[in-house]
Amino acid sequence: MKALRFDGKELSLAEIARPDDASEALIRVLLSGICNTDLEIARGYAGFTGTIGHEFVGVVERADARPDLVGKRVVGEINAGCGECERCVAADPRHCATRTVLGIVGRDGAHAEYLQLPVTNLLTVPDGIRDQEAVFAEPLAAAVGIAEQIDILPGTTVAVIGDGKLGLLCAMSMQLRSDNVTIVGKHAAKLAIAQNLGVKPVIVDQLSPAIASFDVVVEASGSESGFTTALDLVRPQGKIVLKSTFHNTPTWQASRVVVNEITIVGSRCGRLAPALALLERREIDVDPLIHAEYPLADAVPAMLQAAEKGVLKVLIRP
Amino acid sequence: MKALRFDGKELSLAEIARPDDASEALIRVLLSGICNTDLEIARGYAGFTGTIGHEFVGVVERADARPDLVGKRVVGEINAGCGECERCVAADPRHCATRTVLGIVGRDGAHAEYLQLPVTNLLTVPDGIRDQEAVFAEPLAAAVGIAEQIDILPGTTVAVIGDGKLGLLCAMSMQLRSDNVTIVGKHAAKLAIAQNLGVKPVIVDQLSPAIASFDVVVEASGSESGFTTALDLVRPQGKIVLKSTFHNTPTWQASRVVVNEITIVGSRCGRLAPALALLERREIDVDPLIHAEYPLADAVPAMLQAAEKGVLKVLIRP
Repeated sequence: MKALRFDGKELSLAEIARPDDASEALIRVLLSGICNTDLEIARGYAGFTGTIGHEFVGVVERADARPDLVGKRVVGEINAGCGECERCVAADPRHCATRTVLGIVGRDGAHAEYLQLPVTNLLTVPDGIRDQEAVFAEPLAAAVGIAEQIDILPGTTVAVIGDGKLGLLCAMSMQLRSDNVTIVGKHAAKLAIAQNLGVKPVIVDQLSPAIASFDVVVEASGSESGFTTALDLVRPQGKIVLKSTFHNTPTWQASRVVVNEITIVGSRCGRLAPALALLERREIDVDPLIHAEYPLADAVPAMLQAAEKGVLKVLIRP
Repeated sequence: MKALRFDGKELSLAEIARPDDASEALIRVLLSGICNTDLEIARGYAGFTGTIGHEFVGVVERADARPDLVGKRVVGEINAGCGECERCVAADPRHCATRTVLGIVGRDGAHAEYLQLPVTNLLTVPDGIRDQEAVFAEPLAAAVGIAEQIDILPGTTVAVIGDGKLGLLCAMSMQLRSDNVTIVGKHAAKLAIAQNLGVKPVIVDQLSPAIASFDVVVEASGSESGFTTALDLVRPQGKIVLKSTFHNTPTWQASRVVVNEITIVGSRCGRLAPALALLERREIDVDPLIHAEYPLADAVPAMLQAAEKGVLKVLIRP
């Protein structure tokens, strides 16, 4: 089968064997999505080699442990735990110390014709959700998951830093809970996507210095300056949610965190079920986030496109 | 009167006018304590000039707004708010945007014969508490306050990084709530103070790498490596409490915070009332933390002594 591979130095489209571990489910990929993490992996982040990609919707072709899933359309939790540690027994493989992660840690990923995952990782996709929507389940879960970590109430003032695909999903998700969401970014066209939903857009260069008024600031820009902007925006005793993984080792003004008694909440993956529910109820419209769709044969050019400034979600169709 | 002054470059004992703002209380200082923040101010932190010092116990000599306080022994909340903003109206001047802070921001401090504070900042000291204990009310409040920000339950595993005076007060305070407190430091003699109370001592060089098992890690070392140690010690989805103010701009591995979904809680001042209650009930014994007492005339040598490695609390008596 065809797969988009990273060998530690460069990306290439390769012909490799189809996954064949009968203890897991075999899934034929219908559509996969390029995440910023994919772009960072292609720059050497996390030392991953193999098939990249972790956002997908597919059809189960084989699932010996759950034959009822065969033929079903599914999305998948990307963390696969050992199944035996305290974390896994508590049904949360996301923090299993020996986990593999689809296309990120020790497990071939989704930019391919087929992938495999444990059957317990799979969620069937309701018929009302199109493939182009279902492929957003994983990043939407990451955005929606913020509200499972901290309270977002109708009166909570929220600023989201970053108008990329993750920032927009975060702003859209927060807007479902609060009437006071602001998105801070660099691109008027991208900010407008959130503005159409009632989110207040602000160009980052036009921010008043040290507003220090927001209850919650979500850092989703992935840029080193994003955290400093977050410190400028958050009120004393407010919360900063870190959504972006930084590859390098940035500096931070730790004393501002102490003096203003800020809480910083690291946030990675969320649960897929609430994200699917939002898509099914059409409470989140991801269509404006799709920039382009490429055939898998053009996966390398698709990655180059996704890495360009101002480009939102690039999808790959096997 | 005599006062320990910092002019932005160096410390000196100076003869200055006694405070005379009749809208506040005049307090004759009985005893003051040197905090690491004082040492950082003397290195230029926060750009403060004036009389330093914010830990004290004293006697009210004048208090036009509360004549009943005259002659009473008091300690004082160090943040003085504007009295009118949302924060101050909610009785929390600690985060008033225009606050002054005793001996730290825009207000002469406690290493002097007299100081002044708003009467609303004062708490009378119960007779059962000696001066040498009452002078710890402010730093003890900062340690005890951690448990007002996050839950410390009997089964919560806690590691405190730093065996200085703040680290020891944090370990002592946490030990009142949890049976599983570890203190990580460099000095066996200082660690022993906590060990005598049931806290488990660990020399930092003997830490196993990346234990990642503690529910809560309190960073009270003030050293740049302390935060990395905290990341090594905290479990996935655990909490790091930042107690130390870093003067410089350290680096941090932000991606570890995101991937392991760590929560970082900045923590500065606590409430004095619970600290006084602990001292009155003799649940915290601060005597082992006292290294030396100097007369105010020797306040500059006292500061030099306090800055030496391995030295705990140095007190100054006017």
